[in-house]
Amino acid sequence: MQKMMIHYNDVPIYPIVLSENFDALGEALDDLMIKDRKVCIVTDSHVADFYLEQVEHIVKEHCAAASHFIFPAGEESKTLTTVENLYEFLIQNKFERKDMLVALGGGVVGDLTGFTAATYLRGIRFIQIPTSLLAQVDSSIGGKTGVDFRAYKNMVGAFHQPKLVYSCAETLKTLTSQQYISGLGEIIKHGLIKDAAYYEWLKAHKEAILARDTQTVIDMIAVSCHIKKEVVENDPEEAGERALLNFGHTLGHAVEKLMNFTMLHGECVAVGMHAAAWLSMEKGMLTEAAYKDITDTIVSFGLPVSVKGLEPEQIVAVSKSDKKMDKGRVKFILLDPEGHAVIDRSIRDEQLLAAASVIVRNGEQS
Amino acid sequence: MQKMMIHYNDVPIYPIVLSENFDALGEALDDLMIKDRKVCIVTDSHVADFYLEQVEHIVKEHCAAASHFIFPAGEESKTLTTVENLYEFLIQNKFERKDMLVALGGGVVGDLTGFTAATYLRGIRFIQIPTSLLAQVDSSIGGKTGVDFRAYKNMVGAFHQPKLVYSCAETLKTLTSQQYISGLGEIIKHGLIKDAAYYEWLKAHKEAILARDTQTVIDMIAVSCHIKKEVVENDPEEAGERALLNFGHTLGHAVEKLMNFTMLHGECVAVGMHAAAWLSMEKGMLTEAAYKDITDTIVSFGLPVSVKGLEPEQIVAVSKSDKKMDKGRVKFILLDPEGHAVIDRSIRDEQLLAAASVIVRNGEQS
Repeated sequence: MQKMMIHYNDVPIYPIVLSENFDALGEALDDLMIKDRKVCIVTDSHVADFYLEQVEHIVKEHCAAASHFIFPAGEESKTLTTVENLYEFLIQNKFERKDMLVALGGGVVGDLTGFTAATYLRGIRFIQIPTSLLAQVDSSIGGKTGVDFRAYKNMVGAFHQPKLVYSCAETLKTLTSQQYISGLGEIIKHGLIKDAAYYEWLKAHKEAILARDTQTVIDMIAVSCHIKKEVVENDPEEAGERALLNFGHTLGHAVEKLMNFTMLHGECVAVGMHAAAWLSMEKGMLTEAAYKDITDTIVSFGLPVSVKGLEPEQIVAVSKSDKKMDKGRVKFILLDPEGHAVIDRSIRDEQLLAAASVIVRNGEQS
Repeated sequence: MQKMMIHYNDVPIYPIVLSENFDALGEALDDLMIKDRKVCIVTDSHVADFYLEQVEHIVKEHCAAASHFIFPAGEESKTLTTVENLYEFLIQNKFERKDMLVALGGGVVGDLTGFTAATYLRGIRFIQIPTSLLAQVDSSIGGKTGVDFRAYKNMVGAFHQPKLVYSCAETLKTLTSQQYISGLGEIIKHGLIKDAAYYEWLKAHKEAILARDTQTVIDMIAVSCHIKKEVVENDPEEAGERALLNFGHTLGHAVEKLMNFTMLHGECVAVGMHAAAWLSMEKGMLTEAAYKDITDTIVSFGLPVSVKGLEPEQIVAVSKSDKKMDKGRVKFILLDPEGHAVIDRSIRDEQLLAAASVIVRNGEQS
């Protein structure tokens, strides 16, 4: 078991616990003083089948009353309608300000549960039990919550910090290969933007990582969580440095949306990282060898570097409607030669279009 | 003009400006650095007729682009549906994270605009220009935002602090007598819970207050804002002392809901204060003379102390479904002999019922 603490302004805010299984969950819950409080476990229809019974059994022993709310698995559930159904459930079950929610699942469950917790009775507590690799290294940490609104992804949301993140390596065993590999997209990103040694370590341990060797996976999650932790601690509400985590996301989000969420988030980030690395090379910040190494690495982990069936113009248009805009300009994240990410506000439309062309022209590579 | 600053943890957060008219608004806007940002003025159909043109003219001169969003006046607009329409407007007009909303209107406009600002793109800035007496002395200060959800009042919301509160005494002239007097309900409450001298001052200046004499009104708003400011500074998210502001609200909210919002908020608070004062007397905390003085004062300002057509049992049942519950117990606010409010968690159901009976039995008094 590994444990690290997220601080804001040097004040400890919440622990991240990484464990092989759920054995240490009860102890972590005891620190939250919920003995005489109600707890609702929020999960989706897919994760419920695997882990709800086990988690609810543990939660029940550490609070006054445990209940659960299950919604249909999938991005299409991440809406205000699902949030409203959850409000209704909480009201019917008389949840009060000091009661708590548990988000048991991947990114959709975490984002939606966090947003409900942020806005029910002007904010109640919640904890994250992320079950996907992507959620364990990325979305469960840092307090970003939200839902999709009509055609717009994550336009509605709030910053609301969890009281605990409990990641259990065991849950990764039940992911499909595609879901697991999608999580590696964000992990490669962590190496690229912040830690060249970690990036090399990932390449060196590729076999064990892809085989989901428990200890290797826990070590990997620990480093990725540590990188994410440092960035969000320095910039809780994305006023500056936190934007670096958007490496690969500017065009990646556009691809995700245009593909109608048929590709997984980490896959789209991989494609977006390719475009961003190419643009870094075009601007003279990366060598061709470094650019080539990045695309080779992405491909070697089983992730795509391009997409079929989209037009570069569409990708640019959708990117420009994203929320990561400032006075109408895209905040693009590039890589510099020292293996650091930097924010670039000078990307012109024709450069964006050229980068988008790089990721659609070689359909056969994906 | 008067100005005071709200601090949290000794850090200045936002100013409250009290002015006779809108002449100082431009200068206050300049401090917000919105010269190259978009601003959307949110208001209702009633307030728009009186003040939108004037305010939009000033805002337009201090930002890059001003627009407005008008929704139908009334509590029935304070819903997630109106919020969703506002999200759509902001998305269509490409509002970004550093752009700003202006809430121009009474409590409904402020609560709804604040909640939209709290949740659009995970939070953008907003300012309050409260135009009702109630909003100027109460709802515009302290960062409580929210909407009604289905049958449940204010169950959905967030704490989100405005960047400026600009109150203009001129706007009070266009309130109906009933609306103006409703605001006095919260003002009398401020005297009762925190400042016996202010309560006496209110009684002594009754004629000038009811005549809406500009200087008297500004002095009154300043003291009430100061009382509200001190309470919310000590307890931004209602973990403790802030609950004292709920004096009169436990049964008052229940009455408001049961009367289907045909009575104004301050009127319901007045009725609730009567019940709470009576309960304070019953518990030996107030003398009969003090209790009588409170009801006489409420009545002398034209506010009701009782309601017709409700059953005490209904009032108790609805009170107990309110969000101000802790482990199933009502947190009731009572008055003590020194003119201070205290939180009481020991009120039994039969005492609640007796207090509810006091405010329904004398229908002819209201």
